Formats: sequence, C-alpha cells, structure tokens
Amino acid sequence: MTTSKRILSGMRSSNPRLHIGNYEGALRNWVDLQEQGYHMFCMVADWHALTTMYENAGEVSRNAREVAKDYVAAGIDPVRSPVFIQSHVKEHAELHMLLSMITPLGWLERTPTYKEKQADLGSAEREPYGLLGYPVLQTADILLYKPYGVPVGRDQAPHLEIGNDIGQRFNRLYNVEVFPEYKYLIPQDETRAKLPGLDMRKMSKSYDNCIYLSDTEDQTAEKIKSAFTTPTKIRKTDPGIPEGCAVCQYLKVYSPTWQTQWQEDRDGLRGCMQNKKECTEAINEYFRPMRQRRAQLDDATIEGILADGAIRAREVAQATMSEVRAAMGIY
Amino acid sequence: MTTSKRILSGMRSSNPRLHIGNYEGALRNWVDLQEQGYHMFCMVADWHALTTMYENAGEVSRNAREVAKDYVAAGIDPVRSPVFIQSHVKEHAELHMLLSMITPLGWLERTPTYKEKQADLGSAEREPYGLLGYPVLQTADILLYKPYGVPVGRDQAPHLEIGNDIGQRFNRLYNVEVFPEYKYLIPQDETRAKLPGLDMRKMSKSYDNCIYLSDTEDQTAEKIKSAFTTPTKIRKTDPGIPEGCAVCQYLKVYSPTWQTQWQEDRDGLRGCMQNKKECTEAINEYFRPMRQRRAQLDDATIEGILADGAIRAREVAQATMSEVRAAMGIY
Repeated sequence: MTTSKRILSGMRSSNPRLHIGNYEGALRNWVDLQEQGYHMFCMVADWHALTTMYENAGEVSRNAREVAKDYVAAGIDPVRSPVFIQSHVKEHAELHMLLSMITPLGWLERTPTYKEKQADLGSAEREPYGLLGYPVLQTADILLYKPYGVPVGRDQAPHLEIGNDIGQRFNRLYNVEVFPEYKYLIPQDETRAKLPGLDMRKMSKSYDNCIYLSDTEDQTAEKIKSAFTTPTKIRKTDPGIPEGCAVCQYLKVYSPTWQTQWQEDRDGLRGCMQNKKECTEAINEYFRPMRQRRAQLDDATIEGILADGAIRAREVAQATMSEVRAAMGIY
Repeated sequence: MTTSKRILSGMRSSNPRLHIGNYEGALRNWVDLQEQGYHMFCMVADWHALTTMYENAGEVSRNAREVAKDYVAAGIDPVRSPVFIQSHVKEHAELHMLLSMITPLGWLERTPTYKEKQADLGSAEREPYGLLGYPVLQTADILLYKPYGVPVGRDQAPHLEIGNDIGQRFNRLYNVEVFPEYKYLIPQDETRAKLPGLDMRKMSKSYDNCIYLSDTEDQTAEKIKSAFTTPTKIRKTDPGIPEGCAVCQYLKVYSPTWQTQWQEDRDGLRGCMQNKKECTEAINEYFRPMRQRRAQLDDATIEGILADGAIRAREVAQATMSEVRAAMGIY
C-alpha cells in the first residue's frame, strides 16, 4: 500500500534511551507505517517531558537527542520521515495557546491519565498547571499536522480522544473544516505491544527491568541471565509455563523457532539456561543492525537531521496555523 | 527625570473602544510615564481577550486595531513607545508554555480574579482551561520584557503578584537571575483612577454607562445630559452632594474651576443643567486633541505602527527567550 497519508507520532524525552518495550509498543509500528508508504512526522516531545521534569529541563533536552538517535537507529528514515524536536517548532506553543481557550476545563479534569500523574506527583502544591493541560498540548502537536492517523500506545487513548473532541469543537465553533478527525493506529501484534520487563512487570525505567536499544550485546546477555522465568522450574526436567516467563515472551517475539522452544519448555525438555542463551542470541541478532546504525550516529549528524526535520515540520505547522488564524479571524 | 527603564503595559481587546475610565485608570498613567522618560512597551492583549471571547475571536482581532488607535490618540508616541499586538509576538506563547510547567496549579486556583471570572461564566463546562491560566499568560507577557515596572489597574494586583512569584520561582529553580522583580506603578490620582460611569457605578461597557475616547462632542453632550446627579437636587436651589454625583466627579477631573463649581452645587447656587453644560465643555475640551488625532489615524497607518511595534517587541522578547532557554538548558 502506497499512500501519502500523513501520520504524526511522538514520544516524550523523559529518558535518555528507549527500551525494547518502547520499540515494540510504538517505534516498530512507526517503521512499519513508514514502509507502507505513510508520510511519518516523528516528533520528540521535549516540552511534554517538562510536565513532570521541569526541574531537569536540561536533561530533557539532552535526552531528546538520544531519543532521536533511537528513532533513526530503529529504522525511521529521516529523508522520508522528518524527525524533529517539539520545542524547535514554536507553532506547537501557539496552537496550544489558542486551543487552551476553547478547551473546557471539565474535559481535562476528567482525563484518567491526569488523575494517575497527579497521584504520582503527590502534593497539589508541586503539580504544575501544565500537567493539567497536557492533553491540550498533545492535541496541538497532533492537529498541527492534520494527520490521517496517530499511532496509539496503550496508555494514550484518553488523551487522543480528547484531541479529536477539541478539533471538532474548533470546527464547530468557527464553522470550518480545518481539522479532519484522525484515526488511531494500534499495533497489530498484542504480544509485541505488551512486551514485559525482565521481571514480568511492565517494562519501565523506574522498575529497572529494561533492555535498551542502545545496550551492548554483553549487557543484553547479562540482563537476560537475571530475567524472570517459571519459578517452579528448578531443574531442566521441571515443566515450564511460557506464558508467565519473561524469557519465553522474548523468544516468542524474537526467535523464529519459538514454538518448538515453548513446547520443549513446557515438556521439561529444556532448561532455563538454554532458553536464556537462545533468547540472548535472538535479541542480539534482531537488534544488531539497529545498534550498529546507532553507534554510527554522531552528535553532528543527529543535529543535522533534527534541523532539517524542524524545517519540514515547520512548513506544515505554519500552513496549518495560517488556516487556524484565518478560521478564527485573528490577523 | 530621564531614564531608560523599561515598562510593559497592556490592555485586553475585549471591546473595540476604550472609555475615559480606561484612559484615567491606565492610559493616562502610561503617557505620563512615557513623558517622564520611561521606555514603554504598549501591548494590546488579544490572546487574553479570548479567555472569555473565544467564540468571537475575529471581533477581538478587529478590536485590537481600535484599541491601538486609542493608545496613540491618547498620547502614546509609537516612535518612542512600541505599540504591538500580543499575538504578533509568538514568544509570548512559548514563554507561557514554559512557565505553565513551573507554575503550581494551587497558585492559580487561589487567584481572586479567577474566582470572579469563573462566576461570570456560569457553568464549569463553558469555562476554558486558558481562563485558569490567565495569570500565567499575563506573567509571560510581563517577564518577556524584564520590565522595571508594570502600571497596575485596580483589579490586577493579584495577577501581577503571582507574576513576580513565578519569575522568582524560575530564578530559584534554575539558579539564575534572569527575571528581576518588577514594581507596581499605581496611578497617583485616586479620583482619576476611579472615575465612575454615568450612573455612578463602575464605568463598564456592560453597564452601558461609558463615555468613549472616540465619542463625538455631540455624543458626549447627549450622554452627560442623562448622567446621574444628586437625586434630591430637583431645583437649582436644592443643595447637591458632589461626592455622589457623576457630573461633579467629572468636573473635578476635567474642569480647572471645579472647586467653585462644587461649592456652588453644595450651596444651591447652581443647577444640574449648568453643571452638565460646563462638564460637557470641559470633557470635550480635554479630549479634543485626542479625538482629532484619532480621526486622522487610518487603518493603514495603524497597521504600520503595529508592524513596527511587533518587530521592536520581538527583538526584546527573543533576547529574553534565549536567556530563558539557556537557563533551563533547552536547546
């Protein structure tokens, strides 16, 4: 399928490195869409990361470069798919401002993710105004590109729904058709999209249970060695339960022969050590080309990619802003 | 006193025309400051007006030109004092975005003016997110120019205090001295600053009790004829109470001989008709040069003034944003 349909995708630069859970849950989907001929705009959302990391804004900015490297390493081709940093395209702030004037406060207070993040932060005194407005900023990010669709992670659905609501409210208020409704593009493969961490909890930096795109092969081996397996499988001959074993989950995604491996695990015909060895090989083989690409991406190259990406993103964003201002009658 | 100290001043463009209450409460103060040698930046706050008028954004934009004409008519010299529209300087949106990340929500919810405006709007469903953030936007407007001072109207004190609080919080968070504390510049003459409407309530468009800078002399005469005077003064010989009489309040501000006029009013030596006639003359005389200047300001001239003003405002705003980004480590 070749199409010039535009897609806006992005991740926060809260962390300096993406893990393979981020890759499977989002990035891989982006690369697939790019290869299907969609016109991807790949944003690194640094302003978003400030909602919870404003005290470490410099870190957020440095992270943004590393995340961009991960995008490119994972297969985003910056020639076809502009890669850019949100704060380099000031139109995001302008549209955010305008949308903040037409977004009812009640819509934001009801956002489930807001309530979660609020709980994370603890005291209301520390909770920034911008956290409440997170969905407005995300909506501006999306609508600026008037995309056909937006790749959706598992947690983002409520934010993205409010985006269409705000877009349609804009159209209705000003009696225009500036913002088409966008579609949610959900990763097809459920196992990949829910790749667990090394301890079978959600893969997350805060749980220290991640394999990173930028890990070396040795680091990967070391991590897999300590991964969670069937607790009752002590000896090789004990039966395993692959559904509850992190290593088997990884095999399912990265090993072409996973079905045999799972059967042997279940039947007590192979031990966890063998699984771990083969899992390490499978993961390292899968990510080898990406890791090689990443190692070759120096700082100057990524800055060049980001500068070019910002120019191309700005072109679209400025055209949309002209339409938005005209629709509202702001001149 | 000559000084190059910078001052940021602004009014919302909610209405197309400023009334003499706006003039006395703010604009006159700005002109005085300009004449004292301060370096005024005179903003027309169109984005602010959207907090309550988002449905009529085009009106807000048209109003902005009329308000700018009133600034210039009132004596703001655009050569010395850049006159510009807020939305023409996009840095306001960017700084607003960044400050929204460091402003605790609790600070905003406690703002008295917010509670008032909230009550005005009625249902929470209609209340936009941006209304809650009004003080953050106003703070961005001010801090962008790192002013020595800000002229303060009667209602604005709580918003402006939060501005210094946010500025100092920024300095503390990033361990910098980017934002100096600014001073509140309050109009010296209490009578002028509290000029009542024709019915002795606060002068406000919604009460339909205004004399506008742009009214003709005949319109002014007509309005003064219907102005509120001492209710118990039916005949000329009845004693008046000038403190409670709108016409006498205007005389106090605009008539050089107001002390005699007040005494005669009190003593029943003059009637309300005479007061009104002399009041009309005094007001028309005072505003005649402004009204003439205003009549000569055509649309092309004001667009030129605003374009030039935006360039000069942007120059300062961009320099501040460079400092802000550097302080935060955003690049």
